[in-house]
Amino acid sequence: MSLRLAYLGPEGTFTEEALRLMKPGAERLPCATVSAALNACRAGEADGAVVPLENSLEGAITTTLDEFAWGEPLLISAELLLPVQFSLLARPDTELRHIKRVYTHPAAITQCRGFIARELPDAVVVAAPSTAAAAQEVSLPGSPYDAAIAARIAGEHYGLVEIAANIGDRSDTVTRFVRVSRPGPLPEATGSDRTTLVVFLADDHPGALLEMLTEFSVRGVNLSRIESRPTGEGIGRYFFHFDFEGHVSDARVGEALSGLHRICGEVRFLGSYPRADGVAPQIKRGTADADFAEAGDWLTRIRSGQV
Amino acid sequence: MSLRLAYLGPEGTFTEEALRLMKPGAERLPCATVSAALNACRAGEADGAVVPLENSLEGAITTTLDEFAWGEPLLISAELLLPVQFSLLARPDTELRHIKRVYTHPAAITQCRGFIARELPDAVVVAAPSTAAAAQEVSLPGSPYDAAIAARIAGEHYGLVEIAANIGDRSDTVTRFVRVSRPGPLPEATGSDRTTLVVFLADDHPGALLEMLTEFSVRGVNLSRIESRPTGEGIGRYFFHFDFEGHVSDARVGEALSGLHRICGEVRFLGSYPRADGVAPQIKRGTADADFAEAGDWLTRIRSGQV
Amino acid sequence: MSLRLAYLGPEGTFTEEALRLMKPGAERLPCATVSAALNACRAGEADGAVVPLENSLEGAITTTLDEFAWGEPLLISAELLLPVQFSLLARPDTELRHIKRVYTHPAAITQCRGFIARELPDAVVVAAPSTAAAAQEVSLPGSPYDAAIAARIAGEHYGLVEIAANIGDRSDTVTRFVRVSRPGPLPEATGSDRTTLVVFLADDHPGALLEMLTEFSVRGVNLSRIESRPTGEGIGRYFFHFDFEGHVSDARVGEALSGLHRICGEVRFLGSYPRADGVAPQIKRGTADADFAEAGDWLTRIRSGQV
Amino acid sequence: MSLRLAYLGPEGTFTEEALRLMKPGAERLPCATVSAALNACRAGEADGAVVPLENSLEGAITTTLDEFAWGEPLLISAELLLPVQFSLLARPDTELRHIKRVYTHPAAITQCRGFIARELPDAVVVAAPSTAAAAQEVSLPGSPYDAAIAARIAGEHYGLVEIAANIGDRSDTVTRFVRVSRPGPLPEATGSDRTTLVVFLADDHPGALLEMLTEFSVRGVNLSRIESRPTGEGIGRYFFHFDFEGHVSDARVGEALSGLHRICGEVRFLGSYPRADGVAPQIKRGTADADFAEAGDWLTRIRSGQV
Repeated sequence: MSLRLAYLGPEGTFTEEALRLMKPGAERLPCATVSAALNACRAGEADGAVVPLENSLEGAITTTLDEFAWGEPLLISAELLLPVQFSLLARPDTELRHIKRVYTHPAAITQCRGFIARELPDAVVVAAPSTAAAAQEVSLPGSPYDAAIAARIAGEHYGLVEIAANIGDRSDTVTRFVRVSRPGPLPEATGSDRTTLVVFLADDHPGALLEMLTEFSVRGVNLSRIESRPTGEGIGRYFFHFDFEGHVSDARVGEALSGLHRICGEVRFLGSYPRADGVAPQIKRGTADADFAEAGDWLTRIRSGQV
Repeated sequence: MSLRLAYLGPEGTFTEEALRLMKPGAERLPCATVSAALNACRAGEADGAVVPLENSLEGAITTTLDEFAWGEPLLISAELLLPVQFSLLARPDTELRHIKRVYTHPAAITQCRGFIARELPDAVVVAAPSTAAAAQEVSLPGSPYDAAIAARIAGEHYGLVEIAANIGDRSDTVTRFVRVSRPGPLPEATGSDRTTLVVFLADDHPGALLEMLTEFSVRGVNLSRIESRPTGEGIGRYFFHFDFEGHVSDARVGEALSGLHRICGEVRFLGSYPRADGVAPQIKRGTADADFAEAGDWLTRIRSGQV
Repeated sequence: MSLRLAYLGPEGTFTEEALRLMKPGAERLPCATVSAALNACRAGEADGAVVPLENSLEGAITTTLDEFAWGEPLLISAELLLPVQFSLLARPDTELRHIKRVYTHPAAITQCRGFIARELPDAVVVAAPSTAAAAQEVSLPGSPYDAAIAARIAGEHYGLVEIAANIGDRSDTVTRFVRVSRPGPLPEATGSDRTTLVVFLADDHPGALLEMLTEFSVRGVNLSRIESRPTGEGIGRYFFHFDFEGHVSDARVGEALSGLHRICGEVRFLGSYPRADGVAPQIKRGTADADFAEAGDWLTRIRSGQV
Repeated sequence: MSLRLAYLGPEGTFTEEALRLMKPGAERLPCATVSAALNACRAGEADGAVVPLENSLEGAITTTLDEFAWGEPLLISAELLLPVQFSLLARPDTELRHIKRVYTHPAAITQCRGFIARELPDAVVVAAPSTAAAAQEVSLPGSPYDAAIAARIAGEHYGLVEIAANIGDRSDTVTRFVRVSRPGPLPEATGSDRTTLVVFLADDHPGALLEMLTEFSVRGVNLSRIESRPTGEGIGRYFFHFDFEGHVSDARVGEALSGLHRICGEVRFLGSYPRADGVAPQIKRGTADADFAEAGDWLTRIRSGQV
């Protein structure tokens, strides 16, 4: 029986595109929201879920961050970096010069500002809940809109034609997606892995963040992302999301996590998984697994008085 | 002639409420977006602007952060912490039991989930672009909606009555607003000040964040907020917003900022201004202005060989 | 059969006094030098050795430090803080006014400067190899010296009378002695322990010392002593002696030592033993053995995907 | 009138050799002790003094360290690294096979152990107060000693011949000497300078040493030597000597010193002077004088609201 994956729908979203690239043969379950997709996974209606985590222009998808922090635990098992390429999509037989009303998500309006100013200077652009929803709306015969800006895949789903491709102002915009599943065995370490955590402070004393970062740096573990999020208990109270190099099965990562766990209020482990970019980290002197093993043997010896 | 302040409109937003509390007598210029409000200030159409910076439930207002980082420079001159209290607003003569369709911003839907489930279990709740826009819509005679969830002030603006007050699930939700103006003389130090910065890394070497935090901690300057934002150059490339205790005219703050300026790619100063909570920071041993002055005299003496 | 302990002789030294306080019933083997005493222990001629490590006025006994660093490994099993009280000792029937020539160790000359100036202003003071040797010399019938400055115990050994007691300028001078034995089982942890190390750098990069100290501080281990000693390879090349709070069987100490072992060239463990002052260290939040154990269990769980 | 320099005598010491290399034309005033030499300078009997500071085998000359810390202030104006080469010196017409009794300082006995065992296996070796005093004694016609181990210069002074040259076990032993003078204008910065400090802690809290080192590291100032010395107030109470790269007139060094001065109990500046090895330090990014100047200008601008 095939794998069933929930995702942020409707059909035709960039998330669907990410899912198809990550697991081509999987059965796809579109959901209305990130929360709904994750809940489908939690409830067992899906074997996993694919959701966006951050975008290179817009930043973190805070719904995803907060779901990972507060919802029933899930584990990230894979990530994908998807170039975000917007297409101008319309019903068959529409020409560029006919387009007077465009429908799309506000982020797409921002990111395609140059194209719109240049090619559609007189068009009215209206905000849609998602790019896929815009495409869906445009596909309806009586739609008040002439075109949508969305992923090419949305055009395929809704029978639209691509009037113009890759119309974003920046050609290098990327969204990072993650695939999650219910807690269970972790992906094996590959030598090019990433680990994600949520950390709540024990108390909010000055220097608490510096102490957390020192737990990483002293074991040679490099951070790649930090996000602060409000705890909900008032302005000035935050918790943190961290991404860093390495797999929890690495000795240096394990010791750093234990250190955080000891000094912080709560550490929630969100998974260790292969990096999408395949980059292997530089291992700082004395922090390879063999170094930890050798040091452990040495410690055992000196504790028994063999020096 | 009175002060003219742009703000995130339309009339009846929480931002208007914040503005009226900060500058009761000011002339108010509602703008459609945060960017529009800030641009009105930049262009001289307004003397300043009031915009939201962060919310204790939703987190940072990323549009504001990004405008401060990338737009023409502005300086924060004041902050306000505004409790976010939602009211259920309707046209006169509406009763609670008549309400079948509610219109409000998605954040309000989330934050009033308990009230809605309890008091309006059968109502349809529809997403609006803003709470004030929802109130405005409900005020129209032919509106398909029976009630809006919005700030009480929105009811006053649009002639609605308050069916229920303070209906949020949490009574302690707060939004932090800031007032900005064009560059010019800073507010005087009060002894209870905050300073805000944007910092771009020179390069993205491991430990760069730890180094930045050390520039603060070594001078006894306590951080109160850190936000990472994407630079737009790809996943994994971030810049940082910092809030910390103290005024740039404080010696310890000045030296910490100079230190950051020396080691970072770019430091953009966003202002020093009185803290809304009036809390005076604890000054770490050796970091008061008098300590810096005395150390400076001592350095002058030893540099001239008087020991 | 009784315990046999070598010590820095001859009979009558402060070291003998320390030995008698540490192990009253032990057989005593006086040796000419610190090295000789330690070698007697290494060679099995004695079961252990008592040697001075540092003095609160003179500082480290560098011979002892270097022997511990370079010689065949030994383990410290106990320490003692001995108040250094100098006595003016002479042959029976000598009176203070008869004393014209005084013999003692240069350190004693320095430390009794006030008494000598006040009570023996006209006496010639001559440097001896040790205070005990001075007493021994004075005890000889034909000695050219009228008195010795030495430990009271030296007077008892050599049949001298105490003309004046406690004649040091400072009444609080203390020498720290340690008892060592050949490698073997360590003293049990008592909750008030000290650990001593020698650390050689892997290379001499800037910041190497800071890194070492961070290995301690990040695990909440407080240093009580640091001494640098030359490696012999030229000015600017040093190794380090460290004393710090806690026992190697403590989890936080073990992890700190392993950390040093991983990043440093060589770490030589010199022992964990009860502190002479009986002070229990303050355990920093999250660094007690129970915290490490709990964190270890947590790590095991998350590594198996149970979150 | 020529410069008059006190030094640790008698004539023929390695210190005299160092003085002659540092100031060939100076008038030389031999003194019995390091303290006497420094006092001659303090009292104006000499224009300066040359004393040993550390030796690559024996370590710090603690008398010198303590004089610098506790005595009337003096400033180091120059340093010299002198290879320590021992010669076997005897009265004219002595041959190696005639030598039965050798006189020298204990440090020389240690350092020439190999030569003595190989070439003088049957000789009795007796400890002298200094190598120069040994040479002086051997030069007396009725001396009970056949040879001295001392500096070649001692042979020249006392009319001895050099039976064997460079007889130390290690050929690379070096002593570091410093020239001091009364407080006054400092030597100009050369780009290859060293600065020496004494630092007393304000209190002895855990982490105090780490904090001191951080004051250096955060400004990119590299330590080259740290020595702890007892304050005299009991075991466990220490002060510190630091050598580090750079000149007090360097901005980064000045700021680091001011930082130490603010957080420590007392900082005594002992001088900035050219390094004997001529090595120019690597200037860490953002810590050159130009970087500090530019950051200072920037700070002035932002403090006046010009951003």
